[in-house]
Amino acid sequence: MTDSQVPVVDWHERQPAGDWLRGSSAVVVLSVDVDAESPVLARGEHYLNHLTTMSHQAYGPRVGVPRILDLLDRYRLPATFFVPGVTAERWPSVMATVAERGHEVAMHGFTHRHPVHLSEAEQREEIERSLKCFARFGVEPVGYRAPNWEMTRHSLDLLGEFGLRYDSSLMDDDRPYVTLGSGRRIAELPVQWLLDDWEQYAFLPEPDIGQQIEAPSKVVELWTAELEAMRGFGSLCVLTLHPFLTGRPSRLRALEQFIQFALSRGDVRFARAEEIAALVLGDEQGSATGPA
Amino acid sequence: MTDSQVPVVDWHERQPAGDWLRGSSAVVVLSVDVDAESPVLARGEHYLNHLTTMSHQAYGPRVGVPRILDLLDRYRLPATFFVPGVTAERWPSVMATVAERGHEVAMHGFTHRHPVHLSEAEQREEIERSLKCFARFGVEPVGYRAPNWEMTRHSLDLLGEFGLRYDSSLMDDDRPYVTLGSGRRIAELPVQWLLDDWEQYAFLPEPDIGQQIEAPSKVVELWTAELEAMRGFGSLCVLTLHPFLTGRPSRLRALEQFIQFALSRGDVRFARAEEIAALVLGDEQGSATGPA
Amino acid sequence: MTDSQVPVVDWHERQPAGDWLRGSSAVVVLSVDVDAESPVLARGEHYLNHLTTMSHQAYGPRVGVPRILDLLDRYRLPATFFVPGVTAERWPSVMATVAERGHEVAMHGFTHRHPVHLSEAEQREEIERSLKCFARFGVEPVGYRAPNWEMTRHSLDLLGEFGLRYDSSLMDDDRPYVTLGSGRRIAELPVQWLLDDWEQYAFLPEPDIGQQIEAPSKVVELWTAELEAMRGFGSLCVLTLHPFLTGRPSRLRALEQFIQFALSRGDVRFARAEEIAALVLGDEQGSATGPA
Amino acid sequence: MTDSQVPVVDWHERQPAGDWLRGSSAVVVLSVDVDAESPVLARGEHYLNHLTTMSHQAYGPRVGVPRILDLLDRYRLPATFFVPGVTAERWPSVMATVAERGHEVAMHGFTHRHPVHLSEAEQREEIERSLKCFARFGVEPVGYRAPNWEMTRHSLDLLGEFGLRYDSSLMDDDRPYVTLGSGRRIAELPVQWLLDDWEQYAFLPEPDIGQQIEAPSKVVELWTAELEAMRGFGSLCVLTLHPFLTGRPSRLRALEQFIQFALSRGDVRFARAEEIAALVLGDEQGSATGPA
Repeated sequence: MTDSQVPVVDWHERQPAGDWLRGSSAVVVLSVDVDAESPVLARGEHYLNHLTTMSHQAYGPRVGVPRILDLLDRYRLPATFFVPGVTAERWPSVMATVAERGHEVAMHGFTHRHPVHLSEAEQREEIERSLKCFARFGVEPVGYRAPNWEMTRHSLDLLGEFGLRYDSSLMDDDRPYVTLGSGRRIAELPVQWLLDDWEQYAFLPEPDIGQQIEAPSKVVELWTAELEAMRGFGSLCVLTLHPFLTGRPSRLRALEQFIQFALSRGDVRFARAEEIAALVLGDEQGSATGPA
Repeated sequence: MTDSQVPVVDWHERQPAGDWLRGSSAVVVLSVDVDAESPVLARGEHYLNHLTTMSHQAYGPRVGVPRILDLLDRYRLPATFFVPGVTAERWPSVMATVAERGHEVAMHGFTHRHPVHLSEAEQREEIERSLKCFARFGVEPVGYRAPNWEMTRHSLDLLGEFGLRYDSSLMDDDRPYVTLGSGRRIAELPVQWLLDDWEQYAFLPEPDIGQQIEAPSKVVELWTAELEAMRGFGSLCVLTLHPFLTGRPSRLRALEQFIQFALSRGDVRFARAEEIAALVLGDEQGSATGPA
Repeated sequence: MTDSQVPVVDWHERQPAGDWLRGSSAVVVLSVDVDAESPVLARGEHYLNHLTTMSHQAYGPRVGVPRILDLLDRYRLPATFFVPGVTAERWPSVMATVAERGHEVAMHGFTHRHPVHLSEAEQREEIERSLKCFARFGVEPVGYRAPNWEMTRHSLDLLGEFGLRYDSSLMDDDRPYVTLGSGRRIAELPVQWLLDDWEQYAFLPEPDIGQQIEAPSKVVELWTAELEAMRGFGSLCVLTLHPFLTGRPSRLRALEQFIQFALSRGDVRFARAEEIAALVLGDEQGSATGPA
Repeated sequence: MTDSQVPVVDWHERQPAGDWLRGSSAVVVLSVDVDAESPVLARGEHYLNHLTTMSHQAYGPRVGVPRILDLLDRYRLPATFFVPGVTAERWPSVMATVAERGHEVAMHGFTHRHPVHLSEAEQREEIERSLKCFARFGVEPVGYRAPNWEMTRHSLDLLGEFGLRYDSSLMDDDRPYVTLGSGRRIAELPVQWLLDDWEQYAFLPEPDIGQQIEAPSKVVELWTAELEAMRGFGSLCVLTLHPFLTGRPSRLRALEQFIQFALSRGDVRFARAEEIAALVLGDEQGSATGPA
C-alpha cells in the first residue's frame, strides 16, 4: 500500500441534523427486524428442509411479533419494523398487523442478503422487489436498514435515487446526521452492535448465526447503562430487536425492564424512526413524508 | 432467487392442542439426553482411542445419571430420558435403571448422527435399529427427539409411519401443538437453546463440542427467569439436561435450585413428555399410549 | 456404522480405590502446569520469533511461578507441578525452586505435543526424554499428566511400563480410581475442564489458545461452587493452574479466595497428587513411592 | 524436534529498571490506540466500500477521541496516544488535538499490519513512513507499540536503530524493565490482554475482529481487581483503550469508574508512557527525551 492508496478524503459526506432532540436528553427508537427465515434462506434454500432451523426462525413472526406488539400496546409506545420482502411474502399477516397497530414498516432488503456481497444490479433488484412487495400491502416505506447493517456506497446512492428519506445502518456516531445519496439528503439514524439483541442471544449451529446465550439480566444492564450514559451526550438510542430472539418470555421481560427504565428517567422520548428522520431533515411539519 | 423460489406456504402443518395445562400456569418437562459417547463416535470412530474425550462423555452414564436419578427421587419428580441406541448398547444398566426408577425412556436416534445429514434410508435405519434395541430392554417408546434437534420433513413422516406419538425437537412455539407425520397426528413438545445445558457448559477441544464454561449461577438465572416469564404465557418449559454436563456437583446443585424455584411457585406442574403428549393429542384417559 | 463397529465393552478398566478421603469431605489437589513456551513451540518453532507470544508464555516461569510459590508458602500448602521437559530445559531454575520449596514435580510430556496426535514411538520418546531430563535435576517423578489431557490407550500402557504410579488426565469420575497400564495398577486422579484456569482466562491470537477473558470473581464462584458441592459427594477436587494465566495479580487473588474458602470449610484437606495416588493404590505407609 | 532445536538461552535480554515507582504502590499508564480504519484497511482495501465497517471504525476518531480527551481533562490526567500513520493521514485533526491537549503521541506502525507477518524491509518501511508522517505534524515520537502487540526480534532492533526509547508490546512481566535493540537500551512497558478493551467489547463480522460484547460493569471489575492486586506487587498498569470501542457512552462511564477507583486508592500515580520510560532508563531529570 503506497501513500496514494490511502485516501485522506472522507468516505461519506455528513451534514448537521435539524433539532430532533426537542428538549429530550435522549431519544429511543425501538426497531424490530422481522427477519424470520430470511437470513437462513439467504444462505441456502436447502434450509427449507431443516425443520429445526426453520422453526427456530419462524418463532419470530408466529410468537414473537404478537408478544412484542402486545408489550408496545401496554406501554403505548411506537416502533419501527424493518421487514425483508421474503418475510412479508411468507408471513403476510405480519405486514397487516404491524401497520394496523400503528407502527412504521420500513425496508430491510428483499432476501436479507448483505449488500456488500451483491452486485449493483442485485442491490437495485432487492430494493425494487421490496417496494413492489410493500405496495401490494399498501405500504410506502420511507426508511431502510441494510441486512446485517452491511452497506456500500452504492446502497446509499440507491436510497437517494428511490426517494427514501432515511437509513439506519451506519455506526460513526450515536446522534443522527444528514448524508447524501445520489445527491439527495438522507437522514442517517446510526446503530451499534451493543444495542442489538443478536450478539447476546443468537445461537444456532446450522447455519452458524451465533454461539452464545447471555442472561437477560446482562442485556438489561448493557442497554440501560448505555441509555443512561447517552442522556449525557444527547444521543439517539436505536435499539434493535429480533422477534425470534427477544420474543422468548424472559427476554420480553428484559425489554420491558429497559422500557420501564427509560420511562422512569422522565427526559427520554420514544419515537418511530421516520419521525426522527423528518426532524433531522428539517421537514416543516416535523412529521414523516413518503418517498418522492 | 426468483419469487417462485420462495414458497409462501407454511413448511409444516400445525393444529391446536388439547388441554395440557390443566390449570397450571406452566408445565416443566425435565428431559435428559443420555448422549454418553454417541455424539463423539458419530463424528469418527477414531475417538475410541481418545481416552480423555471418551472419559469426558462416559462421566454421563457412569456418574451423572445415578446422581440425577437420586435428585429426582429426592423431589419425587418424573422425567423423560432420551437415549441413543449406541448408549443403550454401551451402557445397558442405564436403560434398566432409568425405567426401574419410574421414568420414561424415549428415542434419540441410534448413532446420534443428525437427521439433516442423513439420507431417507439412513433415517429409517436409525429408527428401526433404535426400536429393535429398545425392544431388547422391553421398552416401547412413544416419543422421539432428533439428535442435535436437527429434523427434516422426512423425520416427521417417519415418526408417523412408525406410530410414534410425539416429537420434541422443533422451536416455533413454547406451547405444544399437533403436527402431522405421514398423515398421522403427532404432538410437538417444542424445545429451545436457552433451556439446554449444552450451550452453557460444554467444552471439549477434540471434537469441538463447545468452547465456554459458564457459572452454574448464570444457568440458574437463565432458566428460572424463563420459567417465571413463561408462567405469564402458559408455556411448556422443556428443560434439556446432559448427564456428562449437568452431572457435575455444582451443576446438579443448579438443577436443584431450578427445581426448588419451580416448586415454590405453587402453580407449576412437572410431567413426563409422554403425559403432555397424551393430553395434547386428546387421548381419552389423559395418559400415554404405546406405538400403534 | 454397523452393530459390530460399536464396541459394547468398556474402553478402559477400572478398579476401586483405597481410602484416600480419610475422613475429609473432599480433598483438593492444587496442580500447576508449568507450560511456559512449550504449547506454543509445539505448534511451530517459528513462534520463537514471535516475541509477544513468547513473552506471554514466559510470564509463567518468570513471574507467575514465584508468586504462586509465595502464596502456597503463606498458607503452608503442598502442590504438584507438572513440568514439560521443554520448560525444564528452558527454565532450569523452576525445577530447582519448586522441588526446594517442598512441592512435587511430575511429568507433563516433553514437548507438550498432545499424545493423541503422536505415534506410539513418539509417545515413548516423549516419556524417555522427560525422565532423562528430570534425572539431570535429581527428580524421579511418580506421576504424569498428558498435555491438553489428551491420552490414548497406549499412553496408559506406557505409564505402566515405565513404572509411573498415577495419571491425572481422564474425566469419567470426580473420585480417584485404579486403572491398568501394561497390566500394572495405576491411580487415576481425574480432572475436568471447569476446574481449569485455561478455559476462563486464556486469550492469544497467534496461536489461538483461547478467545475470552473472564473476571476472576466468576472463576472464584465457579471453583468454590464446585468444591462446596463436591463435599456432598466425597470428591477429589483437582484444580489446574497455569502460571502464565493465574500468575496475574487479580487471578492470584482469586486463587487465594478459593484457598480461603476451602480452608474455611474445616473438612477439606489439601494434598500432593502423589499422596492421593499412594492412598488410592493402598501403599502401606500412605506415602508416595518412586518408580519401580 | 531434537534437543538442539530447543534453545535453552533466553530470547530477549532483560536488565533491571531505574526507580519508576517513586513511592507509589502502582502506576497507571492510560494508553489510547487510535486505530480508526487502519486495522480494517490492513486486511484489504475493499473494505473502503464497506460503509458499515468503515463507519464502525470511524466512530473512534470522530466521536470517541474527543470524548476521551474531555474525560481526561475533567480529571486532569495525562495519557499516551498510539497513532498508526494511516490514522494520522486520514484524520489529521486527531494528531493536532491530542498534542494540543498535552498528551503524548507515540508510534503504532504505519498501516497497522502486524510486524510478525512483515519482512524486515517492510518493518523498516513502516517505521520510516510513520516518522516522516509524524514529522509533518511536528511530532517526534519516543515510543512504539506494535500493531496487535505482535513484535519480532527485528522489531526491537529497529527501535534501537531509530533511537526510540521505549516499547509497549511485550507481556513477560507487569513491571517495566530494560531490554536491548541494536545494542541500545530500550525501556519495555509491558501490556496484557486483560487490561485491553478489545477482548471485552470488540464485535464486527467483516472482518471478524471479535465476537462478543461484555457489559461495562464486567470490565470495570476486571480492571479494578487487577489494579487493586497490582498495588501489592508494585506493578505498572498499562491500560489499553480503543476510541471506537471505549468511546461509546456506557464504556466511557466504565473508564471513568476505573479512574475514580485508582484515584481513591491514594497511592496510585498516573503517568505518560514516556515519563515511565525515562525513569526506567534512568535519564537524569526523570523526563522524556526525544530520539537520538
